[in-house]
Amino acid sequence: MIPRYTRPEMARIWSPERRYRIWLDVELAACEAMVRLGQVPAEDYGQLERTFARYELTPADVARIDEIERTTKHDVIAFLTFLEERGGLPARHLHKGMTSSDVLDTTLAVQLSEATVLVLAGVDRVRAALKKRAFEHKTTAMMGRSHGIHAEPITFGLKLAGWWDAWGRRREAIERAGRTVAVGKISGAVGTFANVDPRVEAFVMEKLGLAGAEGAATQIVNRDRHAELFCAFAVAAGTLEQQATEVRHLQRTEVREAEEPFTAGQKGSSAMPHKRNPILSENLTGLARLIRSYALASLEDVALWHERDISHSSVERVIGPDATLALDFGLNRFAGMMEGLRVYPERMLQNLELTGGLQEAQRVLLALVGKGVPRQEAYVYVQRNAMKVWEEKVDFRTALERDPDVSRILTGGEIGACFALDYHLKHVDTIFARVFGA
Amino acid sequence: MIPRYTRPEMARIWSPERRYRIWLDVELAACEAMVRLGQVPAEDYGQLERTFARYELTPADVARIDEIERTTKHDVIAFLTFLEERGGLPARHLHKGMTSSDVLDTTLAVQLSEATVLVLAGVDRVRAALKKRAFEHKTTAMMGRSHGIHAEPITFGLKLAGWWDAWGRRREAIERAGRTVAVGKISGAVGTFANVDPRVEAFVMEKLGLAGAEGAATQIVNRDRHAELFCAFAVAAGTLEQQATEVRHLQRTEVREAEEPFTAGQKGSSAMPHKRNPILSENLTGLARLIRSYALASLEDVALWHERDISHSSVERVIGPDATLALDFGLNRFAGMMEGLRVYPERMLQNLELTGGLQEAQRVLLALVGKGVPRQEAYVYVQRNAMKVWEEKVDFRTALERDPDVSRILTGGEIGACFALDYHLKHVDTIFARVFGA
Amino acid sequence: MIPRYTRPEMARIWSPERRYRIWLDVELAACEAMVRLGQVPAEDYGQLERTFARYELTPADVARIDEIERTTKHDVIAFLTFLEERGGLPARHLHKGMTSSDVLDTTLAVQLSEATVLVLAGVDRVRAALKKRAFEHKTTAMMGRSHGIHAEPITFGLKLAGWWDAWGRRREAIERAGRTVAVGKISGAVGTFANVDPRVEAFVMEKLGLAGAEGAATQIVNRDRHAELFCAFAVAAGTLEQQATEVRHLQRTEVREAEEPFTAGQKGSSAMPHKRNPILSENLTGLARLIRSYALASLEDVALWHERDISHSSVERVIGPDATLALDFGLNRFAGMMEGLRVYPERMLQNLELTGGLQEAQRVLLALVGKGVPRQEAYVYVQRNAMKVWEEKVDFRTALERDPDVSRILTGGEIGACFALDYHLKHVDTIFARVFGA
Amino acid sequence: MIPRYTRPEMARIWSPERRYRIWLDVELAACEAMVRLGQVPAEDYGQLERTFARYELTPADVARIDEIERTTKHDVIAFLTFLEERGGLPARHLHKGMTSSDVLDTTLAVQLSEATVLVLAGVDRVRAALKKRAFEHKTTAMMGRSHGIHAEPITFGLKLAGWWDAWGRRREAIERAGRTVAVGKISGAVGTFANVDPRVEAFVMEKLGLAGAEGAATQIVNRDRHAELFCAFAVAAGTLEQQATEVRHLQRTEVREAEEPFTAGQKGSSAMPHKRNPILSENLTGLARLIRSYALASLEDVALWHERDISHSSVERVIGPDATLALDFGLNRFAGMMEGLRVYPERMLQNLELTGGLQEAQRVLLALVGKGVPRQEAYVYVQRNAMKVWEEKVDFRTALERDPDVSRILTGGEIGACFALDYHLKHVDTIFARVFGA
Repeated sequence: MIPRYTRPEMARIWSPERRYRIWLDVELAACEAMVRLGQVPAEDYGQLERTFARYELTPADVARIDEIERTTKHDVIAFLTFLEERGGLPARHLHKGMTSSDVLDTTLAVQLSEATVLVLAGVDRVRAALKKRAFEHKTTAMMGRSHGIHAEPITFGLKLAGWWDAWGRRREAIERAGRTVAVGKISGAVGTFANVDPRVEAFVMEKLGLAGAEGAATQIVNRDRHAELFCAFAVAAGTLEQQATEVRHLQRTEVREAEEPFTAGQKGSSAMPHKRNPILSENLTGLARLIRSYALASLEDVALWHERDISHSSVERVIGPDATLALDFGLNRFAGMMEGLRVYPERMLQNLELTGGLQEAQRVLLALVGKGVPRQEAYVYVQRNAMKVWEEKVDFRTALERDPDVSRILTGGEIGACFALDYHLKHVDTIFARVFGA
Repeated sequence: MIPRYTRPEMARIWSPERRYRIWLDVELAACEAMVRLGQVPAEDYGQLERTFARYELTPADVARIDEIERTTKHDVIAFLTFLEERGGLPARHLHKGMTSSDVLDTTLAVQLSEATVLVLAGVDRVRAALKKRAFEHKTTAMMGRSHGIHAEPITFGLKLAGWWDAWGRRREAIERAGRTVAVGKISGAVGTFANVDPRVEAFVMEKLGLAGAEGAATQIVNRDRHAELFCAFAVAAGTLEQQATEVRHLQRTEVREAEEPFTAGQKGSSAMPHKRNPILSENLTGLARLIRSYALASLEDVALWHERDISHSSVERVIGPDATLALDFGLNRFAGMMEGLRVYPERMLQNLELTGGLQEAQRVLLALVGKGVPRQEAYVYVQRNAMKVWEEKVDFRTALERDPDVSRILTGGEIGACFALDYHLKHVDTIFARVFGA
Repeated sequence: MIPRYTRPEMARIWSPERRYRIWLDVELAACEAMVRLGQVPAEDYGQLERTFARYELTPADVARIDEIERTTKHDVIAFLTFLEERGGLPARHLHKGMTSSDVLDTTLAVQLSEATVLVLAGVDRVRAALKKRAFEHKTTAMMGRSHGIHAEPITFGLKLAGWWDAWGRRREAIERAGRTVAVGKISGAVGTFANVDPRVEAFVMEKLGLAGAEGAATQIVNRDRHAELFCAFAVAAGTLEQQATEVRHLQRTEVREAEEPFTAGQKGSSAMPHKRNPILSENLTGLARLIRSYALASLEDVALWHERDISHSSVERVIGPDATLALDFGLNRFAGMMEGLRVYPERMLQNLELTGGLQEAQRVLLALVGKGVPRQEAYVYVQRNAMKVWEEKVDFRTALERDPDVSRILTGGEIGACFALDYHLKHVDTIFARVFGA
Repeated sequence: MIPRYTRPEMARIWSPERRYRIWLDVELAACEAMVRLGQVPAEDYGQLERTFARYELTPADVARIDEIERTTKHDVIAFLTFLEERGGLPARHLHKGMTSSDVLDTTLAVQLSEATVLVLAGVDRVRAALKKRAFEHKTTAMMGRSHGIHAEPITFGLKLAGWWDAWGRRREAIERAGRTVAVGKISGAVGTFANVDPRVEAFVMEKLGLAGAEGAATQIVNRDRHAELFCAFAVAAGTLEQQATEVRHLQRTEVREAEEPFTAGQKGSSAMPHKRNPILSENLTGLARLIRSYALASLEDVALWHERDISHSSVERVIGPDATLALDFGLNRFAGMMEGLRVYPERMLQNLELTGGLQEAQRVLLALVGKGVPRQEAYVYVQRNAMKVWEEKVDFRTALERDPDVSRILTGGEIGACFALDYHLKHVDTIFARVFGA
């Protein structure tokens, strides 16, 4: 992922230094387990521990490993060669009975777990912002819209409550997929533990804080696990896009009920100095497309051949960082945006009045039905007056009062009662209670 | 989905008759709730119940509703008109205070729940077949392969154990997504309960056996729920493809370790009468591509505008049936295929011998390291003899015995011990126990 | 594709009757070629011709072929058996030296060619509507918007000119991909012409009106050809979505500059009788998602194994019809919508005035720069007055006139000149000329 | 894209230094055009030319521009500010009447054109390798396989001829899409040329070597153009995957008819020193997944709002480089691999014999039909003998000779003639001629 959409917290997880450090953790933990099983001399392990336990890899180390890899064309062998250069003879005990994927897949499990933790923190930040703003605007009335057309009043708080709730679902799905993927393996070339004791695997998984080991591994951990995680990210990206799209709509000139935070020095357009564009939300929309596309690549990674082929590797080298970086960045951008979102309640009220009360058409319909008018007949009365609003620019309530069929059935007061705003807001408390808890 | 890939059990769920019947269930349940709240006369409801409670819609009814829709261009209004034709005056109480999506989304929740139940039954059938065959071939030795190249021995049972385990994960993900989507709403045009009591919603959800109602609905239930389900199907399709691909590999002429069941009259090729092609597995591979693609469309459905736009509707009318039909069909096809899979253990043994013992290269490597040879040096000894197998067609064991460096370090007996097959199978019990339970 | 999104013209191409008829055409043409090469007795072919040349397959024939396939589990063999039942002994000359894919792939080429012709007719209908409306609204001024924010004036005709132009590109890409896919093969089991003369292939391709034969076929025609076509459809779907999305925006209550045609009996909402929703455009948006997703499945079909595997077949049985049906339906729906689109020029003018002239900010900026003010300084002047429009609800022109820095540099007349609308429309003729030709 | 899959030639195109240099080219060309139109003093332009015409941006310049952008939050304004810092007062003439997208989209057109040139060079290198190897192995017989099952003989040259031909199609599609995307715009904020003369645009496009300008631009160039290019890349990735997959199949232990080049120091596996894995081909398979997924994101970029929204920008910042880098890398990796591919003709011959002549089943079938046996009856004779090969391990030819029905109809010599290899290769010249030209 390009630096523009990268937060350093997430970048660190995917740095070569961090990756090699986890490789080292895996190798050391496996070696420690072998000491306990009497397969490696404690003394040699002690020496390794002194050399490597707290060793932080440097860019120079990374360069050296890369240099070796250019000869061996194999990353794990290059790494082990490097460890032998650094750790001397005892390093020969490392990787004993193991295959590269034991290290690589266990490491990927650790990285994806760490990345998931950061993503979940991003979701939590989003949720905190949404909850705060939801309560702030619990009763801020605004027009509800379906098909982009005015429907009936809601509150801005209700909209945000729904958003908060959606992130609850996304959080749960990501967390669960994070556990599904937090699974490594130390079972050798084809998962049979031919050259490594199953107790080594159990020890390593626990030491590294993973959820467990693949039950019946092949050479690798099964890739349906990873696809589940990238799909969970993709659905979350959809939610991000949905809410960003709403902000874009609310900010458009004709609506202008809310605006993204706008800082002092910021310039909206090189040609048009007056503009305040919802560029953060538009950016999130684009990032969502990227995150969705990465899920697709991960889904194609599931059907590897036999006990593994390595086609998933190039995909994961790219989308592992790219998907988590983009989502992490997007969540934090969205959270900041919602924290500082400018909301214009008075503009929301103005828009509510825009169609002269048309949004209450259904209440008039129900009032008519309540008086015994068949539904389809009432529909006709209401629709013909609604059409007048569009075509004759007359106020809906006035049109109704002038309609002989309607005024025969409903009194002026009954018509008027159809236009009281609080009618729509009477269950806001109920909804907030069931979303946020009592 | 085309009839070729359609099982009637699943087709029934998506038939117009079934859909309209659920619409009727929703409308009746809502009306019943309103009777309890004193909003609809019990008598009128009684009449509706007598007319409709057990009414099974016929193709003629469907045609009549379609006919009305051609005028109204609105499906729910057409349906309500039909109910008024059938149920007379009391039918005017139906749909009171509700919006179309109250009916449509609640119905979709019921349909997707029913479809998920069938899909899970398919998964269970697959798992039963895999478990049976796994135990049958628990110790049937075969070559494990990575990159398509012989690696080290496994058993066919181990392979199947891993498959069974994968389906456990896919089952859990589908079941959970099924619950996420089993959520309806009866909260009116923009989810505010302006014209309908929240207790009506609660009553309807329970009556229909759904998991609950959308916490803070817009006009509709949020579409991230549906995307999660279609993604769960897509990952499962990946697993289906993975295992089908393996069968295709095992059946190829040069491997021929297993074959799809082949019935008497079946013809493999119009031009080549001798062929037995893995067409079921290839078909599953294609179906997996379709199911994956449907997930993509569902992900784009999440970002609807404001309190809803209807762009998701055309997508769901197509992929709701198509994804569940294809997956249901695929699972049952795969289950049948695995139940009847022909397995050739003797051929597996022949293939094990194909490279003259090369698969034991690592054991020789470890034997050398065990004698104190530095790992990288041992690697060189082993590799140069391995190369002889490819280039001089010599048997690997023989080559080792003739290598002065190797024979200096290892005795003939020590070399021979590296080639015992049961070495690889010693942990099969352990793995079976952790996968299938003690 | 479901009937709701199916036009009979396109459905006919994909009917089993049509498919089998093309199969028959292929077999007969091949047989005729063999007669010319002296490989089949003219007499026998004459008999076949009399029986089959004008034979239209009936649903009963289709049912019979399906019945045979249930035994043979092979569609082409079932078909040939059916032909032997009908055509007697001479039918044994059919399919001589050919493989199933010779028939299937050549037939698919014909079907996709026919489908492409219909799609192109749809594009032409769209273009005709767009061109007509573009000229009708060549000088209908409206606000141009970027980021959903008012930018500078355009005309509705300019917008439509750009749309027409885009369809020119899409037309060309589809037409070209249609030619790429209009390629069959009659070269036998693995494309070597082992049992069939290359001249037979050439004869069949010409007789069927195809562009040619696969240069070096495997068992089948290469699937990159088909992926190219489905991708061309997907890009076209993007264009459809783009233009439909614009209509959705223009119809939203706060904008209301255009509306989809709305027929008399149509009802917009079961709950809200007053609404006119852009449901056609929303529907097109959904269809675009489907068409995009089908491209994805086709892309995964390219990498078949060796000289072919049959995994592409299930995909094509579904997306062949589904993609072309959905696109054909969508294009015609869009064309009809654009033909009848209601355009509201007076509303466009009102919206142009919405921000009190802010859209002319750049002209003021340039006027200042023209007087020698450094660009960044001019930007500051303009932006601070633009901010006043948002925050103090003052008219932009008035604000500028009151600004001491601005009024020091520009006279009232010079400021006024910045707000003349025709300034923006002076190049409309130029643009129309280069798009539509002189 | 990560460095591992990046070639410096392509990376250079996407470097910030190169991007800013093209920005400068666009601004200078526009300014030069304005000089010719008398809108900018020649003297000022002369000064700008002296400062900037040959100026190569340095990393320090990039850092400075980035620094400014952190304040302005607008990249083009930051760049113009930088130019004013460097170029003094005359720099105020730059960007006159233009909008950011005039610069950005024209630059993207240049970058994508340059990238396409490199991609096409990669395709050419692939084609050269394939052609050379095709002629080298024109008559190298090998088994043709469908469904992974032996079918009938082909030659390795024929396979490669088909590959070469496919790249011809991919080349053409990429080249054409490259022209479609080689289109910029200099028409101002909403494409009306309000503040810039159309002749400026024409001048800039020609000066930069682009194919032309967008006919009726909005704020930007239409994104269907870009989607077409990324789709062309995706189809090409499918072709890359198809051919790489074939190499993976040919290299698998049981087949081993070809192998990727393997260098001396290279190590195949950390655990299994004997292995030669087709890791280049597997890598290409993974890269193909990535390139496909990028096309998806580009397809979602088409439907921007009104005269533009900026959601495409983040997508293009990522996939512009990533898709072209991955494809460029993949093509060159594949070309190198095919140049050095080890082919084993003797192994191909061995595999041809693997089934005791079963691949000639069709010839026997045709020989029987030629003697007047009805096709379906002949099919039965052949199939029952084919089954004996699988089940009784008898040689096919021998089985036929022993079959009383067959031996009644065909003489031993006639049976023998069915097994002559050159029968299959008689049209190799024809096919080569039509693929490669006479």
